[in-house]
Amino acid sequence: MDSLLPGIQGPEDLQNLSSQELEQVCAELREMIISTVSHTGGHLGASLGVVELTVALHKVFESPRDKIIWDVGHQAYGHKLLTGRQDDFHTLRTQSGISGFPKQCESPHDMFGVGHASTSISAAVGFAAARDARKEDHSVIAVIGDGALTGGLAFEGMNNAGQLNTDMIVVLNDNKMSISPNVGAISKYLTRITAGKHYNRLEADIWDLLGKVPHGSKAQILAGRIKESMKQLVVPNILFEELGFTYFGPLDGHDLPMVMSTLEAVKQLKGPILIHLITTKGKGYRFAEEDGARYHGVGKFDKAEGVKVVTAAKPTYTSVFGETLHQMATDDTRIHAITAAMPSGTGLSSLKESFPDRFHDVGIAEGHAITFSAALASAGQRPVVALYSTFLQRAVDMVIHDVAIQKLPVVFAIDRGGVVGEDGPTHHGVFDFTFMRMVPNMMVMAPRDEDQLRHMLATALKRTDGPSSLRYPRGAGPGVALEGEPIALPIGKAETLAKGQDVAILAVGSMVYPALEARTILAQKGITAEVVDMRFIKPLDQDLLTEVWAQYGKVITVEENALAGGFGTAVLEWAAAHGEVPGPRVLNIGIPDQFQEHASRNQLLEDMGLCGEGISRQIEKFFSLGNDQTRTQSAS
Amino acid sequence: MDSLLPGIQGPEDLQNLSSQELEQVCAELREMIISTVSHTGGHLGASLGVVELTVALHKVFESPRDKIIWDVGHQAYGHKLLTGRQDDFHTLRTQSGISGFPKQCESPHDMFGVGHASTSISAAVGFAAARDARKEDHSVIAVIGDGALTGGLAFEGMNNAGQLNTDMIVVLNDNKMSISPNVGAISKYLTRITAGKHYNRLEADIWDLLGKVPHGSKAQILAGRIKESMKQLVVPNILFEELGFTYFGPLDGHDLPMVMSTLEAVKQLKGPILIHLITTKGKGYRFAEEDGARYHGVGKFDKAEGVKVVTAAKPTYTSVFGETLHQMATDDTRIHAITAAMPSGTGLSSLKESFPDRFHDVGIAEGHAITFSAALASAGQRPVVALYSTFLQRAVDMVIHDVAIQKLPVVFAIDRGGVVGEDGPTHHGVFDFTFMRMVPNMMVMAPRDEDQLRHMLATALKRTDGPSSLRYPRGAGPGVALEGEPIALPIGKAETLAKGQDVAILAVGSMVYPALEARTILAQKGITAEVVDMRFIKPLDQDLLTEVWAQYGKVITVEENALAGGFGTAVLEWAAAHGEVPGPRVLNIGIPDQFQEHASRNQLLEDMGLCGEGISRQIEKFFSLGNDQTRTQSAS
Repeated sequence: MDSLLPGIQGPEDLQNLSSQELEQVCAELREMIISTVSHTGGHLGASLGVVELTVALHKVFESPRDKIIWDVGHQAYGHKLLTGRQDDFHTLRTQSGISGFPKQCESPHDMFGVGHASTSISAAVGFAAARDARKEDHSVIAVIGDGALTGGLAFEGMNNAGQLNTDMIVVLNDNKMSISPNVGAISKYLTRITAGKHYNRLEADIWDLLGKVPHGSKAQILAGRIKESMKQLVVPNILFEELGFTYFGPLDGHDLPMVMSTLEAVKQLKGPILIHLITTKGKGYRFAEEDGARYHGVGKFDKAEGVKVVTAAKPTYTSVFGETLHQMATDDTRIHAITAAMPSGTGLSSLKESFPDRFHDVGIAEGHAITFSAALASAGQRPVVALYSTFLQRAVDMVIHDVAIQKLPVVFAIDRGGVVGEDGPTHHGVFDFTFMRMVPNMMVMAPRDEDQLRHMLATALKRTDGPSSLRYPRGAGPGVALEGEPIALPIGKAETLAKGQDVAILAVGSMVYPALEARTILAQKGITAEVVDMRFIKPLDQDLLTEVWAQYGKVITVEENALAGGFGTAVLEWAAAHGEVPGPRVLNIGIPDQFQEHASRNQLLEDMGLCGEGISRQIEKFFSLGNDQTRTQSAS
Repeated sequence: MDSLLPGIQGPEDLQNLSSQELEQVCAELREMIISTVSHTGGHLGASLGVVELTVALHKVFESPRDKIIWDVGHQAYGHKLLTGRQDDFHTLRTQSGISGFPKQCESPHDMFGVGHASTSISAAVGFAAARDARKEDHSVIAVIGDGALTGGLAFEGMNNAGQLNTDMIVVLNDNKMSISPNVGAISKYLTRITAGKHYNRLEADIWDLLGKVPHGSKAQILAGRIKESMKQLVVPNILFEELGFTYFGPLDGHDLPMVMSTLEAVKQLKGPILIHLITTKGKGYRFAEEDGARYHGVGKFDKAEGVKVVTAAKPTYTSVFGETLHQMATDDTRIHAITAAMPSGTGLSSLKESFPDRFHDVGIAEGHAITFSAALASAGQRPVVALYSTFLQRAVDMVIHDVAIQKLPVVFAIDRGGVVGEDGPTHHGVFDFTFMRMVPNMMVMAPRDEDQLRHMLATALKRTDGPSSLRYPRGAGPGVALEGEPIALPIGKAETLAKGQDVAILAVGSMVYPALEARTILAQKGITAEVVDMRFIKPLDQDLLTEVWAQYGKVITVEENALAGGFGTAVLEWAAAHGEVPGPRVLNIGIPDQFQEHASRNQLLEDMGLCGEGISRQIEKFFSLGNDQTRTQSAS
């Protein structure tokens, strides 16, 4: 049988295919996704689970005239393959290649760029409002997973949609998983209604009939009547109905004819519609079906063998954090660990097993994770919230309003700080030094290696008069030995790692070892640099800064954070506030004022000059340019 | 009849009062709230609406052992009066007086500080989790309004509570209002169930019976059975039940005996409980009952006459914004206005009337407001989101992830920027320069007066390749004439307002006129200052900075934003990045690194030296200290 996929260069090429051919397209999509991701790595399970839905959406609707909006977007590989990106698909998530997420600048079919969860319903309401204001006529469809539905933003969007009563379709892709199995009352509710209902082909036939009703007012009245009786027939009195949505389901999301006829039918209906599809994450790839969490996001793997469990040579920051906190929680029963749908991603799986009363997975709900933690602290417990830096952006107000104003000792363990690599601009965590540092009462730390992480966690947990944060990057640390017990550091004390004469390099977190490498390279060029691990972005070590300011004519700061408002800026503020400007010349090295695209973490760091070689190169240039023309790569 | 209130110095003093006496306490509370707020100003309607609930909660529960958590908190005046703060109540919202919101440091009965909406359920789940982990036994009660229930955080909290099935009580205080009448599907839903149900005394009698069931396992089984039958009897199959809450209601929230017996009854029940009370905002004060929006928050007024409508001598920034946008929306049908439950507070009431299709009140849902706007912009419309600075903190990720990464031309009209006065630390909007400036692709402006606001709005709307923000303070501007049509400013161009010789003062927004005043004062002391209105915090006027750096030995920056990461910092970053450090000595004047308490806006600004006199004083000191010992008030 000839391949059909190469002939599909846009959704219009689906239109003349038979049902059987469309099934074949589904099979070919699965094959291409598995085969490509086995080479590039990427999000596997989610895209495999929505293959039929993707084909059905592009068959029934007319993209980009009709607006198809994907939530999170890691399930959109099939969508990319059907909308003109087959030839580039092998470049998935590689530098200058296609993104792992929908992206407006990549294709007119990517209506709304995404990466974080729970935005699709909000965005769909916006597209619908624009259409209504312009008196246009097209469909708007949001595809959201049951995991993303736990985010408050999704609820805010539904609440608004139900009020407006505008025409839009929400497809709920219910696979019972976020990255890990879902939690929350909504999840329990969905399970309950699924269990109480035998979805079958009979319904599909009715949808099919409904789909064939011709346009026109009489037909619409009929369609409306059928819809009403169907509603009663399917599941009466349901949560989504109370919110103003007409609910259809639950339906088998892998039954292509049924999904198509359902979409065809609801296309003609008025008001907000919710179609509840049951799907299997990883559908069609045995390994992925069996272990959804492992196959959510994967590196390269052997298709026949599946993903191998390999013991990493060096432990990740995440695992050192998880093990250290587990030990501390054993010794101190006041310690709680809180995560937002990422128990394994944040290293908390073992703590979850050992201390179920003190482990809290609150679902995709970062705001709640923090307000909840503030209350735990108010009640005298010691909460440690582990979140990715990029997701902490969701909860800036809760950090300020619920934690910091009240001086509550909540500990923020900020994982994936800095550039994260292949997930690209939506996922880089490069603003947290800025927005955590601006908050009064907050202590801000970043460990240079996994051993320092342990000590900083102890430092944070020792603090009782306010919140603390420690931020560490994705992946493995330098692999230093973990010696002895974690011991609290003196607050606001830097550590001088190497002495020098010509220049002082003040580095934090992930940039300390690269700064040491830069020192070695500079030494070969006759520049001897002092390297200081500042350890604390806030409070700064003022004594050390005073000494450095007195001793050096040139000072360099290095960080893996936006230059705007980050650590280097804090040093400048200190200098200005303490009458130390003028003083030495200062060069701030960090992330320039633009969003960074996807590429490997190392590639991105190299491109920005955030490696030993790059740092030394910038410092050399700083020396050579003299006092009047020094320029750095940073934009102001 | 003797007053009872003076004898109530804590909730324990309520315990021996008869039903009739408790009704009298309610009347006295109302009288004291109205009378005090008529002198101090404050939030009137909300507190009057929950008087019976407040008395009932403190009669039935044992605070602070039982945890009573208020949402938003402006309804907690009665709570303050019953928990030992009668003598200080006249100092409400004045400097060093008691706060207009619950505050942990003010009383052990204020379990969780608040000011922003939708946090109470999240916090209650946290208190319950702490209790459960410690195997303690006490009640946790969240009191939330129907307005606050539209916030995603409230939903995230409910979703988690329903999953945990922990013992907690949510009292839904349903008065159909936020500041303005509520919107959203939830609101419609609550109206529907209220309309469908005649709540009456019969139920109260059953609750009363239930309340008298003695403790013990058999009794609890009985209570459970009664509860089950009651559920069916009241409103079956309801949204909150689907989320895992046992629902009771709707009940008349002003029927004190019924509220008390209901609370008494549910106190013994297991799992999450939701009690739905119908209340009247402003209850007991005719004017406030009749015009809820006007009496939400008021200044001083005459009790007998009510709040007078006075025409202000000078228009507020808010009204100039609203009128300007109204005119622009008349001319350009692509313009949409978006607000989160603050149509009048953000000046959009007239636009709402004129262009209902292009006005969107999305409810208390700042995150959704912005993602929704990003979609409008994606569809080619021109959204202007008007929010208070403090509430924009709720949506930092949406600004980054949904707007800025996609370079969408969303306009952020940031009202109440800077210190807001009597509402205190939860409401000051002093971080937005920092968190907006850190975002790539963002343009950040602040008008010095109401006329500049018009031009900046035109500037923002002219931009098509990315988002823009303009930030203005609470209240009236300097009262300058609004001449001619709004005209877009050249991007990133400062405006020099006065020439000088000794020092350059670079000011932004609300601090430009005070900087001019400082110039006058300094002139009398022989210091002649150039004053520049920078207008753009991002992008900075680099040509002007280069000139200033070449000409002056001293440069001052002035802003009404946290010094950490704000405008002054941007200038330091520019100087460092352009080889201009060392250069002139720099003094950054702004808001120091601590939360500011409540007081009048002018008082706060004066205390921080952010007025003409204060700015000139700091500059004088800067001059007198010489090069080696300059210190500013800012903490590093």
